[in-house]
Amino acid sequence: MTIENVSCTLNRYPEGMVKLDDFKIVQGPIPEISDNDVLLKVLCCSVDPFMRGRMKKDNPSSYVPPCQPGKVIQVFSITQVEKIGANVTDINVGDKYMCFNGIEKYTVVPQQAIKGDGQKNLGNYNKIDPNNPIKDSFYLGLFGMPGMTAWAFFNKVGKPKEGETIFVSAASGAVGQVVCQLAKLKGLKVVACASSPEKIGFLKGAIKVDEAFSYRDFPDKESFVAQLRKVCPNGIDIYFDNVGGYILDSALQLMNVHGRVVMCGMISQYNLKDKYQYTLQDISNRRLTLQGCLFNDYFPRCMGEFMQDMIPMVQSGKLIYKEDVYKGVEKTPEAFIGLFNSKNFGKVVIEPF
Amino acid sequence: MTIENVSCTLNRYPEGMVKLDDFKIVQGPIPEISDNDVLLKVLCCSVDPFMRGRMKKDNPSSYVPPCQPGKVIQVFSITQVEKIGANVTDINVGDKYMCFNGIEKYTVVPQQAIKGDGQKNLGNYNKIDPNNPIKDSFYLGLFGMPGMTAWAFFNKVGKPKEGETIFVSAASGAVGQVVCQLAKLKGLKVVACASSPEKIGFLKGAIKVDEAFSYRDFPDKESFVAQLRKVCPNGIDIYFDNVGGYILDSALQLMNVHGRVVMCGMISQYNLKDKYQYTLQDISNRRLTLQGCLFNDYFPRCMGEFMQDMIPMVQSGKLIYKEDVYKGVEKTPEAFIGLFNSKNFGKVVIEPF
Repeated sequence: MTIENVSCTLNRYPEGMVKLDDFKIVQGPIPEISDNDVLLKVLCCSVDPFMRGRMKKDNPSSYVPPCQPGKVIQVFSITQVEKIGANVTDINVGDKYMCFNGIEKYTVVPQQAIKGDGQKNLGNYNKIDPNNPIKDSFYLGLFGMPGMTAWAFFNKVGKPKEGETIFVSAASGAVGQVVCQLAKLKGLKVVACASSPEKIGFLKGAIKVDEAFSYRDFPDKESFVAQLRKVCPNGIDIYFDNVGGYILDSALQLMNVHGRVVMCGMISQYNLKDKYQYTLQDISNRRLTLQGCLFNDYFPRCMGEFMQDMIPMVQSGKLIYKEDVYKGVEKTPEAFIGLFNSKNFGKVVIEPF
Repeated sequence: MTIENVSCTLNRYPEGMVKLDDFKIVQGPIPEISDNDVLLKVLCCSVDPFMRGRMKKDNPSSYVPPCQPGKVIQVFSITQVEKIGANVTDINVGDKYMCFNGIEKYTVVPQQAIKGDGQKNLGNYNKIDPNNPIKDSFYLGLFGMPGMTAWAFFNKVGKPKEGETIFVSAASGAVGQVVCQLAKLKGLKVVACASSPEKIGFLKGAIKVDEAFSYRDFPDKESFVAQLRKVCPNGIDIYFDNVGGYILDSALQLMNVHGRVVMCGMISQYNLKDKYQYTLQDISNRRLTLQGCLFNDYFPRCMGEFMQDMIPMVQSGKLIYKEDVYKGVEKTPEAFIGLFNSKNFGKVVIEPF
């Protein structure tokens, strides 16, 4: 039996909510390599909400190049060198990289792509130290873009102070669960919102947030504001927004003087044509800051500080991380759609093998 | 003929747009003073948009105490000691103060109100140095709350860089005209919006902004965005917002990556029951910061830096200031309403005499 390659391509640009057949799973032989090429085995791939922004024809503001119909979808991945061409140097079978790579079992790249121009930028191949005790998939989550995002936005934009109240939406997600834990460790009161009793249980039990509730129980602004008033009797000092929409609009009503709204993403809006409209009343009186944030502004600049701060917390068991692992490239469409219908629970990872 | 006192009181809390009969002009004798009192003659009074927020029964977020029906309306004023009681010490006839005082010809205050608790806070009596060459009314405008607001918000929140584009609304107003000039002096491209050909002429002629237009020519979001695209071909780096509403919503569409929206006030919204709803799309990708600002956060802290920076610019004639002076306490309602219907032109000042 010939082992074949399996890849996930974009079938077409999605209209509105992403659908299963916006993707296409293609099979083929394991690609041949020439003398200057490297064959990479893909160990795990990351599925993140920001990818939705890449699945548009014209999206000048998107911060990564768009996906193209018929092409393999590129995501943050962990790959391992399986085979090298005759002229390849300084790259060895078994080496692992954190990189931007296709969702597939095998990929061939020229050695120059891995070696790059010496700059350690997003999208480049970053070699993973084999002595590092961190498990592979964590480079996509806790120690990857979502974890770094959580750490940087919480600390650098949220500017948390002990005793403050933080409200976190999508709180059991790839970013949210890290924000909740960092905030607890810093002595904040943490109010978390997610989508299901199972997630609420995790947040209250494993993460030990102070309050957790399902937004599904408060499906409009009026009831959501009432719920927030109940669980945030002292108002909100930091709102870490992962969702946008009526949840953001509600949180704005509760923000305290000098409150910070960390605008990390608006997952409720990515698939909508008619976007939510927000009330911005009283922003001046309350001196609120609403700050849109992007990973790229903090990394690789803050990488050292991030690792130094995080590793002890993880090693001592003070910081845990929940993943939602999908086995097989063909599960990608389901995993991606699960980001938007709240089906996923924790950081979504695809394992091609 | 007995000289009488004239005061402007709040007749009732305004509903929606402020009307003439929300105010009541009352006359009476010049008040008697007891041995510990000081009789102040009111030289000039400031009429500012933030007063609208004080004319509400329940407004917990207002940063100054509310006005009360039947009571004289308190505003930033310049007063001069006219007469002192027998036991008054360290206060002399002729002394001038910048203070929060009623809109009237004469006010009696106990000497302790002037002496205060030694703290130099907003609302206290700040003695004006008689050797200071600044004219009285300028302490209400260019060197008062609006000028300081312009300087602090532009520099500390706008964080301007030479060559950037700033868009300023209500650009010929008490705050806007200072922002425009500071921005020109700093080498920014200044795009200004106001309400009338006369104001546009002032902005282009005296203030020398790069572009100026009347928002009345672009009365909805679609046409306003089109106009902004025309006059801001490189987008907007700083939007200094004095108005809110569709002008803010339009400017948000044009903001460049890392753009700053200085939220100084929302004069278009203060009299509305149904507030404008805003589109906050794409804030993260563009890493926009929307920051609500209040004067109190910067003063008196930044007073020294402000004076040091401003005085040379004013003395050298690089910075001018247009006032709209109303003569007589009885003109107060008209002057106040003029803030909201764009009738005033420049910093509004009431001269009781």
